[in-house]
Amino acid sequence: MVFPAHAIRHPRTIALIGKYQSRKIGDALIALAAYLQDRGVSVFIERETAERMARPDELSRWMVCGFVDIGAHADIAIVLGGDGTMLNAARKLARYKVPLVGVNQGRLGFMTDISRKDMLSVMDDLLDGNFQPETRMMLDAEVIYTKRENASNIALNDIVIDKGAIGRMIEYNLSIDGEFVSTQRADGLIISTPTGSTAYALSANGPILHPALTGIALVPLCPHALTNRPVLIDDRSEIEVVVTHADDARVYFDGQVTLDLRCGDAIRIHRSEHSICLLHPPGYQYFSMLRQKLHWGEHPAGESEG
Amino acid sequence: MVFPAHAIRHPRTIALIGKYQSRKIGDALIALAAYLQDRGVSVFIERETAERMARPDELSRWMVCGFVDIGAHADIAIVLGGDGTMLNAARKLARYKVPLVGVNQGRLGFMTDISRKDMLSVMDDLLDGNFQPETRMMLDAEVIYTKRENASNIALNDIVIDKGAIGRMIEYNLSIDGEFVSTQRADGLIISTPTGSTAYALSANGPILHPALTGIALVPLCPHALTNRPVLIDDRSEIEVVVTHADDARVYFDGQVTLDLRCGDAIRIHRSEHSICLLHPPGYQYFSMLRQKLHWGEHPAGESEG
Amino acid sequence: MVFPAHAIRHPRTIALIGKYQSRKIGDALIALAAYLQDRGVSVFIERETAERMARPDELSRWMVCGFVDIGAHADIAIVLGGDGTMLNAARKLARYKVPLVGVNQGRLGFMTDISRKDMLSVMDDLLDGNFQPETRMMLDAEVIYTKRENASNIALNDIVIDKGAIGRMIEYNLSIDGEFVSTQRADGLIISTPTGSTAYALSANGPILHPALTGIALVPLCPHALTNRPVLIDDRSEIEVVVTHADDARVYFDGQVTLDLRCGDAIRIHRSEHSICLLHPPGYQYFSMLRQKLHWGEHPAGESEG
Amino acid sequence: MVFPAHAIRHPRTIALIGKYQSRKIGDALIALAAYLQDRGVSVFIERETAERMARPDELSRWMVCGFVDIGAHADIAIVLGGDGTMLNAARKLARYKVPLVGVNQGRLGFMTDISRKDMLSVMDDLLDGNFQPETRMMLDAEVIYTKRENASNIALNDIVIDKGAIGRMIEYNLSIDGEFVSTQRADGLIISTPTGSTAYALSANGPILHPALTGIALVPLCPHALTNRPVLIDDRSEIEVVVTHADDARVYFDGQVTLDLRCGDAIRIHRSEHSICLLHPPGYQYFSMLRQKLHWGEHPAGESEG
Repeated sequence: MVFPAHAIRHPRTIALIGKYQSRKIGDALIALAAYLQDRGVSVFIERETAERMARPDELSRWMVCGFVDIGAHADIAIVLGGDGTMLNAARKLARYKVPLVGVNQGRLGFMTDISRKDMLSVMDDLLDGNFQPETRMMLDAEVIYTKRENASNIALNDIVIDKGAIGRMIEYNLSIDGEFVSTQRADGLIISTPTGSTAYALSANGPILHPALTGIALVPLCPHALTNRPVLIDDRSEIEVVVTHADDARVYFDGQVTLDLRCGDAIRIHRSEHSICLLHPPGYQYFSMLRQKLHWGEHPAGESEG
Repeated sequence: MVFPAHAIRHPRTIALIGKYQSRKIGDALIALAAYLQDRGVSVFIERETAERMARPDELSRWMVCGFVDIGAHADIAIVLGGDGTMLNAARKLARYKVPLVGVNQGRLGFMTDISRKDMLSVMDDLLDGNFQPETRMMLDAEVIYTKRENASNIALNDIVIDKGAIGRMIEYNLSIDGEFVSTQRADGLIISTPTGSTAYALSANGPILHPALTGIALVPLCPHALTNRPVLIDDRSEIEVVVTHADDARVYFDGQVTLDLRCGDAIRIHRSEHSICLLHPPGYQYFSMLRQKLHWGEHPAGESEG
Repeated sequence: MVFPAHAIRHPRTIALIGKYQSRKIGDALIALAAYLQDRGVSVFIERETAERMARPDELSRWMVCGFVDIGAHADIAIVLGGDGTMLNAARKLARYKVPLVGVNQGRLGFMTDISRKDMLSVMDDLLDGNFQPETRMMLDAEVIYTKRENASNIALNDIVIDKGAIGRMIEYNLSIDGEFVSTQRADGLIISTPTGSTAYALSANGPILHPALTGIALVPLCPHALTNRPVLIDDRSEIEVVVTHADDARVYFDGQVTLDLRCGDAIRIHRSEHSICLLHPPGYQYFSMLRQKLHWGEHPAGESEG
Repeated sequence: MVFPAHAIRHPRTIALIGKYQSRKIGDALIALAAYLQDRGVSVFIERETAERMARPDELSRWMVCGFVDIGAHADIAIVLGGDGTMLNAARKLARYKVPLVGVNQGRLGFMTDISRKDMLSVMDDLLDGNFQPETRMMLDAEVIYTKRENASNIALNDIVIDKGAIGRMIEYNLSIDGEFVSTQRADGLIISTPTGSTAYALSANGPILHPALTGIALVPLCPHALTNRPVLIDDRSEIEVVVTHADDARVYFDGQVTLDLRCGDAIRIHRSEHSICLLHPPGYQYFSMLRQKLHWGEHPAGESEG
C-alpha cells in the first residue's frame, strides 16, 4: 500500500479532528487552526467536532466539513484527543489514505504521541516533511447473519466478540483458512492487530506485537479451558468465528461500533485492503513510547543517568 | 529458501536417526530400515544412534555414517524419538537442507507426528511423494564474549538466556534493530521461533505462533517488572541482549547446547539463513495436532460426535 | 458453624432437586426417589423440579414442596445436575443448614462428585452415615443504591461486578476493612470463595484456593493496569466496591442472579453467616477431584501405573 | 505467638544491622547509633555489619555482637538495607522473638518501609512505643536426603525448589497433608508465605496474599502442564515435595541459603513455630505500600487530588 509521499512532505490542506464524544478540546483546536492558517495551510474542521464546540462561531474562519470531504481533500488529518479519537478517525478515513497525526490532550497515548504543549513547536517539522510515516494494518470483518442482512466494518485495534448483557459465557467454533481450530467457551475472543495488541488484548493477557510484524493475535477472554491461549497467525489468514451457543452476544469494532450476534451468526475476518499511515514526530521510537506507557525504566543499565 | 523437490518426491536415500541420548529405539529402527531396504531405498544409520544400540552387529547390513555424510547424501532423514531428537537433528542437518520426518516413540510430539504403530504404513506415502513439506525458520546466535573467542550456534525452538547455578535474577539490556528496548531483571529471556512457541515459551506464558507467521517471540522468564510482557517482532529483526548484571548466566540452544555467560557478554540473534523442512504425512493439520497436544476438544460444536 | 450431625448420620427425610433450568433429569430422579423410598426414607421433590417434568403425574407418589419446606424438614438434599444446580440449591438452602449431595448428570463437576451410574450404589453409604461432611464458606453482599432501595444476596462461588451491555470498562474504588486499596479500571472484579476459585475466577487467571483456606480472592477481569493482580484476603475482611465510572454495570451472584449498577452504587461484601455442608461419598479427596477436572496426571511418578 | 509488648513499647536496647553483603551503609548506621545513644538507648552493632565497615574504629563507642547476643538482649533490631537484609535478619532472629524495624537505603521496600531521610524523625515514635506491630508467619523445611544427613532451615519469604545448573525441567511429586496432589514437571516450585507473595512468587504469576491471610501459596515455575496453576492452602498444612526426576536441583531459602537436591530427596514444609514481628511507623498501611510499589494510582477516583 502506498501513501502519497508528496502530500505528506508538503501538506497544503490539513484537517483537524477533535476528541471523540467530548467538548473539551476547543482551545487547543483553535490555537492549532490559527497557527496552521498563519503558515499558509488550508484548514478543515471536522463537522462533528465543530458541532460539539461551545461557541461554533469561533470556527467561522475555517471550512467545516465531514469525513468524506476530508478524505477527498486533506493531505493530512491531525487528531486532538486520545487513542479512542484516533481509532474513530482511522476507521472513517482509512479508505481515503489520509495520514494521521495524533496530539494527546491528557496523558501520552500509544498513538497520540505529541503532547499538547509540544503541539505548535512540532508543526514546523510536520510542514517541512520531517515526520516519519508508519503503516498500520487494519482488520475487515463481515458479519453473516442468519436472520437479517449481513453487515461489515473495519477496525484499527481489534474486533471483539463478547458475551452481551446476560453475562454468560458464549461458545463458538474458530476456523483459520478453512481449517477447524477449536470450539471455545469463553467470555469472548479478541482479534487484534499489532496496534491493538497494546490495548484491550494486553489486559486479556495477550502479547505485544511490534507494528512491523505481519500478524494477527487471537486472544480469548476468560476461556473455560485453561489451555486456550493467545494464538498468533499470519496476516494473510482468513478467520471465521461461528457462534454456536449464546443467550446474547456482541461484536465490537475498536470498542466503538457494536453489532448484535445470535447463535448461528458467523464473523469472517481478514486483513483489510486499507491501512492507516501514522505520522510520527522526529525522534519517535516505538520502544521508547512503550517504555513510557508501561513504566519500563528509561535508561539502559550501565549508562549514566545524569 | 528452496528444498530440492525432486528428492522429496522420490527419495532414494533415507537416513535414520535414533532417540537423542537414549538406547531404547533399536527394534523400531531395525524394522524401519528393513522395510525401506525392501522397498529399494538406500538406508543410512546415523553413527551415534548406531553406537548406542545394544547389539551393533544387527546394523551390519546398513551404512553407518555421521551427520556430514547424511547431509551430503540423504534425500530425507527420519527421526525416531521425540521432539528433542528432532531438535538435535535439525540443528545438525539444517545447513544441508535435508527434510525431516518425525516418528514418535511415546506420546505424539509437536513435530514427531507419526505414531510408531503407523510408522510402516505411512512409508508408502513417503516414498510416493505424498508427504506435505513445511518450512520452519531457525535462529542464529553469536555470543560476543568479553574475555574469550566468540561462539555461535543455531536453534529450531529457542535460544534461552537464563540465570545459572547461583540462582539469582540476571539483568540485561535488550535492543532490537539497534533501538534500545529496555533493561530487564528476570530469571531469563526466551527468544523463540514459531516452532518453539509451543515448547518452553508456552510454559513461560508466551503465545502460540502459527508456523507460517514470520515472527520471533521474546518471552521473559519471571520478570521482576510485571509489565515486562511477551513481545513479538518481525523475523527480519536483529536482537541484541547484553548481560549487565549476573553472578552466573547461561545461554541454551534448544535446551541442548549450553554456553556460559558473564557480565558484559552480548548475544546477537537473528533469523538463520537456514531453515528446516518438515515432511508431514497425508492428513496432517497444524491445529488438529494442537488440539490433541493441548486437550482442546476434537470436534466442532454442533457436529455429531458419533 | 455446626450442622446437625445426627441428621447427617441417619437421614430420614431427603429432598431431591433437579437440574437448574432443565427438563432432562426425570428418569434419574424417579429412579432415585423410588430407591430411597424403598429404603424407608421420606422423599420430597423440589417444586420447580417437579413442574419442569414432562409427566408430573409420575411424581404423585412423593411430596412436592418448595425450598422453605425442604429447609424446614429435609435432613439432606440431593442435587441431580451440575455445579450450576448445586449453586442455586446452596443459595436457597444455606440458611436452613441442609447438607447437600451432588449427583452429576454429565461430566463430573467440581461439587457434583457422584456419577449417575454410581448414584444408587452410594446411597447405602449415604443412609449409613458414611459420607464425609465438608463445610464451604459463602459470601454475603449488600448493594447500596444511590437511587433506590438496597438489595442483598448470597453466593457460594462468587460475586462478580462486571461491565454490562454497553461493553466498556468500568472504574471502581476498592476498599478492604475501610482501608482504600486502589482505583481500578477493568472489565470487572470477581470476589470469589475457595469454592468459586475453580470456576470463573480460574478462567480469569486467579489461583486455586483449597476449601479449608479461610480466604477470599479478588480477581480483576482484564484490568487496565497490568500490575492489578489477584489479591487474597482473610475471610473476616469487609470488602467495599464503589462504582465510580460506568455507562452500565451489573453485579452477578454465582452467575445466576443479576442486579443492575450505576455510578455511585456501592457493594459491600463479607463472609456470610451461613455456610453450606457438602456431603462427599467415601473415598472422595479434593486433589483427586482436581486432578480429574484439570487433566493432571492421575498417578504419582515412580509408582507402577499397572 | 506473643511478642513481649513492654519491650516494644519502651525499648532500652536496640541492635543495628547493616545491609546484607554490602559495605555501603556506614554513615547512616553511625548517625542512627549516635542518635539512639543520645536518647539513652543501649546500642548493639551486629558483628558482620561492623566487620564490613571501612573504618571499624568509628564503632568503638558501641557494643559489637553476634545474632545470638542480639537475640538474647536486644528489645528491637533496626535493619538498614533492603528487603534482602530484612530476610536474613528475620531468619537469624526469629527464634528470639526480636521485633524488626526496616530502614531502606534506596527505594522503599515491601518490608523496609522507613526512608533514610525519615529515619531519625521516626525514632521518637519508636522510642515512645508508637509503632504498629505486625506478625508475619515463616516457613520451616526439612530436607530428607537419600544419601546424607538431613538438613533444615526457615524462610520468611519463600522456599524454592528449582532446577540447578544443567537447566532442564525437574519432576516432583507434591503431597499435602499426606494426600497426593500431582506429579509436576516444571522449572521448579515456589512455596511462599504471604510476605513472599509480593517477591519472587509475584514474578511467577502468583497472587498477592494479604499478611493477615493464614495461607501458603504453591506457585509452579514454568510448569509443563498449562493447568498447573498457583494453589493456596491453609497454613496448618504439611507439604511434601519428593524429587522424582532431576539431573540437578536445588532448594533455596529466601533466595539466600542454598542446598543441593538429588532424585529421591524429599522436602517437608510447614508453617514455622517462629514468626517475625515487624514494627511499622505510624500511618503505615499495607495497601498504601502496595500502591506505591506496584504503581497503582495513589488517590481514590472522585476525590480531589490537589
